[in-house]
Amino acid sequence: MSLAEAQRLDAADPLRARRAHFRLPEGITYLDGNSLGALPDGAPAHISGVVEREWGEGLVRSWNDAGWIDMPRRVGTKIAPLIGAEAGEVIACDSVSVNLFKLIWAALCMRPERKTVLSEPGNFPTDIYMLNGLAGRGLAVPRLAAADMLEQALDSDVALLLLPHVHYQTGAMHDLARLTRAAHDAGALVLWDLSHSAGAVPVDLASCEADFAVGCGYKYLNGGPGAPGFAYVAQRHLKALEQPLTGWMGHSDPFSFRDDYEAAPGIEKLLAGTPSILALAALEHGAELIADIGVAALVAKSRALSEFTRQAAARIIPELPCISPADPAARGSQLSWRHDSAFALSQALIARGVIGDFRTPDVLRFGFAPAYNSFADCWHALEQLRAVLDSGEWQREEFNRRGRVT
Amino acid sequence: MSLAEAQRLDAADPLRARRAHFRLPEGITYLDGNSLGALPDGAPAHISGVVEREWGEGLVRSWNDAGWIDMPRRVGTKIAPLIGAEAGEVIACDSVSVNLFKLIWAALCMRPERKTVLSEPGNFPTDIYMLNGLAGRGLAVPRLAAADMLEQALDSDVALLLLPHVHYQTGAMHDLARLTRAAHDAGALVLWDLSHSAGAVPVDLASCEADFAVGCGYKYLNGGPGAPGFAYVAQRHLKALEQPLTGWMGHSDPFSFRDDYEAAPGIEKLLAGTPSILALAALEHGAELIADIGVAALVAKSRALSEFTRQAAARIIPELPCISPADPAARGSQLSWRHDSAFALSQALIARGVIGDFRTPDVLRFGFAPAYNSFADCWHALEQLRAVLDSGEWQREEFNRRGRVT
Repeated sequence: MSLAEAQRLDAADPLRARRAHFRLPEGITYLDGNSLGALPDGAPAHISGVVEREWGEGLVRSWNDAGWIDMPRRVGTKIAPLIGAEAGEVIACDSVSVNLFKLIWAALCMRPERKTVLSEPGNFPTDIYMLNGLAGRGLAVPRLAAADMLEQALDSDVALLLLPHVHYQTGAMHDLARLTRAAHDAGALVLWDLSHSAGAVPVDLASCEADFAVGCGYKYLNGGPGAPGFAYVAQRHLKALEQPLTGWMGHSDPFSFRDDYEAAPGIEKLLAGTPSILALAALEHGAELIADIGVAALVAKSRALSEFTRQAAARIIPELPCISPADPAARGSQLSWRHDSAFALSQALIARGVIGDFRTPDVLRFGFAPAYNSFADCWHALEQLRAVLDSGEWQREEFNRRGRVT
Repeated sequence: MSLAEAQRLDAADPLRARRAHFRLPEGITYLDGNSLGALPDGAPAHISGVVEREWGEGLVRSWNDAGWIDMPRRVGTKIAPLIGAEAGEVIACDSVSVNLFKLIWAALCMRPERKTVLSEPGNFPTDIYMLNGLAGRGLAVPRLAAADMLEQALDSDVALLLLPHVHYQTGAMHDLARLTRAAHDAGALVLWDLSHSAGAVPVDLASCEADFAVGCGYKYLNGGPGAPGFAYVAQRHLKALEQPLTGWMGHSDPFSFRDDYEAAPGIEKLLAGTPSILALAALEHGAELIADIGVAALVAKSRALSEFTRQAAARIIPELPCISPADPAARGSQLSWRHDSAFALSQALIARGVIGDFRTPDVLRFGFAPAYNSFADCWHALEQLRAVLDSGEWQREEFNRRGRVT
């Protein structure tokens, strides 16, 4: 393995031309697209058009004339093929956290004789945080079980199995089909958090008969910082679904301004308040770029990048234990290693122009964005990490100072 | 009264130079800033900077380096003086509807022996829609009473009085101080929806001892279509406050990624998921422009515009009944008239370059944005309305076709 081999793989990469669709700053190797996706090259002009033409010139008329009112469904429809969903089953709105709340509530309403929501400890915590308020009012009973104990924990009290599909630290990926089936066998519903999945790993909600899902717009979908999330409801549940954030945009006829709430018949019933059009415009542009590549090509590239990096890391940084699954089919689009000073390593790497991510307390994480990362990126990042380790430069005080976001 | 008088008033207007801070399209008279505020002239460059420099070049580092993580509080602090609040009592995030849900829930937790939420029928309905889910699970009992019956309806069952400050149709403005006192006398809390107030009418939450408030970023604050809303919690309630949308950004230490939720001690506890930075950036720019003018000048200009228009309308369109209060101190920054074909009138006006608003079933509404509207705007709009009425052009089929947003 060598830089030359990485370059050979890049030359043969069917997605190699896609990299030019993103602005990657000069001198930066970016392996953190699973925290914040890179800026699409066309996004600034697209957003400017929405700001200057649609807002500035169209003003309030753009709700009709520029189709703003249809954006949440339209963007959702563009995301749908990336997760094995149909048009009308996905909507882009609010944040992942807020969408989790809606769908946890909805699931509890559909299983009125059950209150337990089963999840996994140590995974991305917003999922279980969203149970906090419901638990305080006696509406939900959280239950946590380690990944390998989840199936045993699925008893007749469980209304909902709520899981992030890909673990944000280790990259371990749940078997979505098997766990969905197990939950259904126990009479429970399933809500998948696809934040680290959509746009990078295979997800087929329809064939797995998943009930609900949410996901993130600012990671592999490149929708910009804090982009709206998305929410999925299987067609068969749409009619009966009740969610609690019954704002005017989720009404069947919002501009009738009636006092009584009547939910929209379709996926729009998940809307609450007025969605940010600027945020949706950026997400629409990013999601289109990714959907245009298609799941099969994204998954193939993701697996090739992570497998190349895993094997190269075993030679270049053998002293760092890799905590991600060795089987590419069992992990997301990322690799993580443990080191007591992972924070300082990640800061020292940034100083060398390599942006990965630190996750407390001791995880160094590289994410692989199949649309724009190259094999040479991965090789270069590992070589720089070797140099950081060899030089001991990570021990400098400047690399050990925490920011607010660390 | 005449165009010349309007022009004299404009020449003497201390805010006349502010109009140039907004992009108002050539040939358009815009009296709908209370639906969607106009584009600030500096907003496109500001948003581009956030997109190209902060997102494109800074990438994930901008959460620290560009201060993204502090934006919800920072923007809230800029809005605070417009509503008589202190720094640390206001935060910009999510939508008005979602913020209503958080604070209705919080109020119910603070009055555990009461369940009734009192509001007004016929006002902007998202406020009472947000009670729908809570009522369905038995957590809240909605009660509606007409504006002049609210004080009588405040009995010992009422946990919360929930009211829009300014009526979206008539512009009638509640006496915020008196109703807050009445609610407190009955042992209830108060949540004010300032969507049609902030940036245009006097609001002094502190001196009125209001408990909670929410408001809109895309009307008089010019934050762009679907801009984030804001939420206010009186300092004295912050410590005990519990809200249900306990996402990771509201955690006391979000980047500790702990399984147990511990709310942030301050106003950040109202955050749920990751906020849209693009949406917040646009709102920050718009709110700064308005806050820089200051409440006193905004209120004086708003009242002068609406009073000039009310008196001119009585002469120019005398056959249209004005449904807004005649006392400038009793109304918001708007005037409304009834006409059976208000929708067609508003469409015919748009064809003549005058954008006001139609509100179902029969209301034609002009909103006055004190930062950029002129007396000549108001005069011109009334003259055009006269011409539309005289010509009968509003009866054309093209002006009677409804869009999705009407």
